[in-house]
Amino acid sequence: MRILVLGGDGYLGWPTALHFSARDHEVAVVDNLARRRWHRARATASLTPIESLPDRIEAWREVSGRDIVAHFGDVTDASFLDRVIADFLPEAIVHYAEQASAPFSMISREHAVETQVNNVVGTLNVLFAVREHVPACHLVKLGTMGEYGTPNIDIEEGYIEIEHKGRRDILPFPKLPGSIYHLSKVHDSHNIHFACRTWGLRATDLNQGVVYGVETEETALDERLLTRFDYDELFGTALNRFCVQAVIGHPLTVYGSGTQVRGFLNVRDTLQCVDLAVLNPAALGEFRVFNQFTEQFSIMELAELVKRAGDALGYTVEIDRYVNPRVEAEHHYYNAVNEKLLGLGLKPHHLGDELVRSMLTVIARHRHRVITDAIEPSVRWRPDAQGSLERLDEDLARERSPQRSRTGVRAPAA
Amino acid sequence: MRILVLGGDGYLGWPTALHFSARDHEVAVVDNLARRRWHRARATASLTPIESLPDRIEAWREVSGRDIVAHFGDVTDASFLDRVIADFLPEAIVHYAEQASAPFSMISREHAVETQVNNVVGTLNVLFAVREHVPACHLVKLGTMGEYGTPNIDIEEGYIEIEHKGRRDILPFPKLPGSIYHLSKVHDSHNIHFACRTWGLRATDLNQGVVYGVETEETALDERLLTRFDYDELFGTALNRFCVQAVIGHPLTVYGSGTQVRGFLNVRDTLQCVDLAVLNPAALGEFRVFNQFTEQFSIMELAELVKRAGDALGYTVEIDRYVNPRVEAEHHYYNAVNEKLLGLGLKPHHLGDELVRSMLTVIARHRHRVITDAIEPSVRWRPDAQGSLERLDEDLARERSPQRSRTGVRAPAA
Repeated sequence: MRILVLGGDGYLGWPTALHFSARDHEVAVVDNLARRRWHRARATASLTPIESLPDRIEAWREVSGRDIVAHFGDVTDASFLDRVIADFLPEAIVHYAEQASAPFSMISREHAVETQVNNVVGTLNVLFAVREHVPACHLVKLGTMGEYGTPNIDIEEGYIEIEHKGRRDILPFPKLPGSIYHLSKVHDSHNIHFACRTWGLRATDLNQGVVYGVETEETALDERLLTRFDYDELFGTALNRFCVQAVIGHPLTVYGSGTQVRGFLNVRDTLQCVDLAVLNPAALGEFRVFNQFTEQFSIMELAELVKRAGDALGYTVEIDRYVNPRVEAEHHYYNAVNEKLLGLGLKPHHLGDELVRSMLTVIARHRHRVITDAIEPSVRWRPDAQGSLERLDEDLARERSPQRSRTGVRAPAA
Repeated sequence: MRILVLGGDGYLGWPTALHFSARDHEVAVVDNLARRRWHRARATASLTPIESLPDRIEAWREVSGRDIVAHFGDVTDASFLDRVIADFLPEAIVHYAEQASAPFSMISREHAVETQVNNVVGTLNVLFAVREHVPACHLVKLGTMGEYGTPNIDIEEGYIEIEHKGRRDILPFPKLPGSIYHLSKVHDSHNIHFACRTWGLRATDLNQGVVYGVETEETALDERLLTRFDYDELFGTALNRFCVQAVIGHPLTVYGSGTQVRGFLNVRDTLQCVDLAVLNPAALGEFRVFNQFTEQFSIMELAELVKRAGDALGYTVEIDRYVNPRVEAEHHYYNAVNEKLLGLGLKPHHLGDELVRSMLTVIARHRHRVITDAIEPSVRWRPDAQGSLERLDEDLARERSPQRSRTGVRAPAA
């Protein structure tokens, strides 16, 4: 198949491009190198040393004998994207080309607007270009489990059958996203759903959990094929961050009580899931939603897992509770359905001590590259809130007996 | 109260400013005159001759002795909006400053992006400016009933209690918007809800039905106080358009079967509703949603009402079915709840023959101004669709026995 990977220089985009190229698909990637630029602006960087996009593509050619074509440009530039799509005529587009950090989106008004404009306009441009040039192309879009928030009912895969006053319908699952970034993904989902209903396009929204892991089958073939690995406050995600912290002797940064539960998956399973979505496309006119994670953990469970694995390797790992910089429920019900990808044949890599030990070992090879300045959380969801651990304890006590108003709005934190 | 009206030069914004000014509130308006510009670009115009914003404000000063302050600028210009809000310190903001036409948003990719960026960024800027300068200010935001689409269950006011697998929650009502414009309002609703949950702001989302009517109490005081009245394909709404068509002898442009049902309200009731929302503010941290309409009608019922009233005044009124330029269900269940504004004391002006006759009479005074070029629908939701009345009849037959897939996606139109 001809597969176009938008955001093909990123943590997931690059391994995705290699994965499909290794399996004899014709692969082209688009990237504006925004992630590299955002890191340079903050003097942070990937833990793993990564080659430039042309160099890693050249390395892949040497290793595999296969070609990946790169287009440097921005998906918010419609005429650029239009040309790429009209020339390549992809049968599937895997769309990762978004600003993907919740804390980044919460830094300031400017960051909020940049995030929503970048993500919403980029995705609108993709939809219009597909409608114009390749209306049968299957759009595989990376969403996030964070679109749902933490409702008090089971989280279904995109839709829910509602019985109400004696009538029934299957409707989009209600969304309670927890940051300006997560909101941008909700906006994308609504826009893509509309394009499928109205123009007959086909799309799969992959509501992905938190991804962890350093290596995939292809990136492990050669040091020059490594994908990026972020551990900083903005772009690092929970388990990846904890593993780096364990290796360098930084306390694990658990936000609040650590009782927040989320869905997680191994980066190798991201590739499996995207592969299954691409090879089993949605029907024309269908907007399909998969919840893409393999296991649920609380943040504290992850911290304890990392501590155990770290201790076994001789590290001294401490867990510190930080005043939660986010506004989120810490004690909440969480049970999300994830049957559709399993139904298509997903074989999960489960998280356990051995896997964490192997992550720690890979990370230790690069520990000299760690920049320790950007690990502590500094971006606050409520910039006016004067956090303290005393406040934290009060908040926890309050959260254990949540008040819920009639309109479904949680009583605002004091 | 100090009340800031964003979009205060528009069809509803201007009468809203007059309404509050007449009731001794301190009123300032913001407008970038975009609606006037969009009309000039298409060589269309308001049926009613409207004064420039400075001139209508001067006329109001003469008529009432009261001052309204105008700020010319764009809400997507954050530093402009910030200055206005920091200086005026409003206690309530009524936010109409959006691109409000569904067909406009469907003309092209450029119009789609302009609509979503204008509306989403403008509203984000309002939220950040309120957070910064007036965190207790009550944001009254104009949404639309079109956010909900036409689900097969009753439409509640913003939230719905869902029982699912033995658990319950009150969650945002699922959204199925029918155009890029309606999507922008859904995005706004999610963003505002987040700002209330996270920053403790207070807001009321007025999911308004289709507004009709020419005059309000204040605009009728002096010819120079008239508000605009659009009847063209882009900015005219159903009943207003039909009334102009009846007066000039153009067939009433019913899209498709005309069996689409929507909520409607008189422009005078818009003012009542906004007044009730402003004087009865949401609680801090609350995102409150009101469904703002007074009656439900099918499009064909409206056309027949206009025909009857027109015939009574001696006009010859024909009703023509047009191939529906939109993608929308024509035969559908529709029952929307609208209890909250009634609970606050709304006294509806009901639609009837007499009211339509009085609209026709006012319109007749301005009939020489009608530009007939822009009445026929030309913007198609599916630009590739080759519409014909034969196709229309097939579509109708198909819609009468709708197929619904398991994912809640209606079977795409062939």
